[in-house]
Amino acid sequence: MSTDTTALDDLDFTPSGLAVGDDVADLLFREARTVNAFADGEVTDAQLEAVHDLVRWGPTLMNTVPMRTLVVRSAEGRERLAAHMAEGNRARVLAAPLTLVVAADRDFHEHLDVLAPHLPDPHGMFPDPDAREALARSSAWLQAGYLIVGLRAAGLHVGPMAGMDATGIDAEFFADNGWRSIMVLNVGTPAGPESVRPRAPRLSWDQVSAEV
Amino acid sequence: MSTDTTALDDLDFTPSGLAVGDDVADLLFREARTVNAFADGEVTDAQLEAVHDLVRWGPTLMNTVPMRTLVVRSAEGRERLAAHMAEGNRARVLAAPLTLVVAADRDFHEHLDVLAPHLPDPHGMFPDPDAREALARSSAWLQAGYLIVGLRAAGLHVGPMAGMDATGIDAEFFADNGWRSIMVLNVGTPAGPESVRPRAPRLSWDQVSAEV
Repeated sequence: MSTDTTALDDLDFTPSGLAVGDDVADLLFREARTVNAFADGEVTDAQLEAVHDLVRWGPTLMNTVPMRTLVVRSAEGRERLAAHMAEGNRARVLAAPLTLVVAADRDFHEHLDVLAPHLPDPHGMFPDPDAREALARSSAWLQAGYLIVGLRAAGLHVGPMAGMDATGIDAEFFADNGWRSIMVLNVGTPAGPESVRPRAPRLSWDQVSAEV
Repeated sequence: MSTDTTALDDLDFTPSGLAVGDDVADLLFREARTVNAFADGEVTDAQLEAVHDLVRWGPTLMNTVPMRTLVVRSAEGRERLAAHMAEGNRARVLAAPLTLVVAADRDFHEHLDVLAPHLPDPHGMFPDPDAREALARSSAWLQAGYLIVGLRAAGLHVGPMAGMDATGIDAEFFADNGWRSIMVLNVGTPAGPESVRPRAPRLSWDQVSAEV
């Protein structure tokens, strides 16, 4: 595959109209499920780095790439995080092989001389911390989408959770670096078929689109 | 592949530590690039539906799936949209094979009796339009991440743009349904190697992560 462009002519399309096979479509989206109970077994740093090496290439606003990740692995770290989760999520955090706190870095602009050297004044463009935080949150959510796909591409399963005291998490872990937590992800492999709920419905293309 | 779980034992891992091949990793992330100039050729409704059929399975907060998409295909629609884009993005919108306005629907709760029937009072849970809009924006950005990956999985390339008057776009197109635009995506296939900029750097895993 050329590094510059991919011509449609070079791709084999499946009956579903995709350029990836059914196995990939199933792994990343169609059969992937939110997991509530995980099997024993470690999620390694090498796996996390492989996922990051993949998903860091996803586009963000002005290449700001503001998503940050706190890896919660130690027993003490789990206890500190669980105390700020909604009650129904605490046991899940304590039991998961690994938990990630996905966060937005409102000081992303400190890296822009490297990330976006084409900008005339990358530092001076973002004087307002509140505006930076809003931009960081948007692109961090966008990157969270890439991250979930990337974890699945590494054969891992996720249990995303938003039931949490985000302000409490930020005070607990991010007092020094100013990161803002947006989501918590349990990561591992499913304990078994009973570790996922029945598939919830989705909307049709007609329900979510319009054309002009 | 089982519909319930995917055991790691069933997957073949590549040297990069992924469960998908290099061709897929390249197509979705590593060689995928933001495209500024597109080749002639139509992006069909069938392609858009195939992408939606794939990415609609991505998880969102409480299965709210609030992302909406305005498909801008007609000459008149392009002109109306281009008028609200930043000056540097106008010609791109007019020239692209297809442009999508990605939006958040703050009235997502009207679908929750179908999407989240396990919630005790799905309509009554979300009385405040501002709180709904904040939640809708977060999950719509998350879904926008899935959408970009899904378009690439269909062999398409994207040119994401945030340089726009979002309030103007919302008044122009969404006065009746209350959608809130978050991003504009040009979609097609690249005109050639010159239609992408040199690859901008990314941060290392050590720069974007911490562990407890």
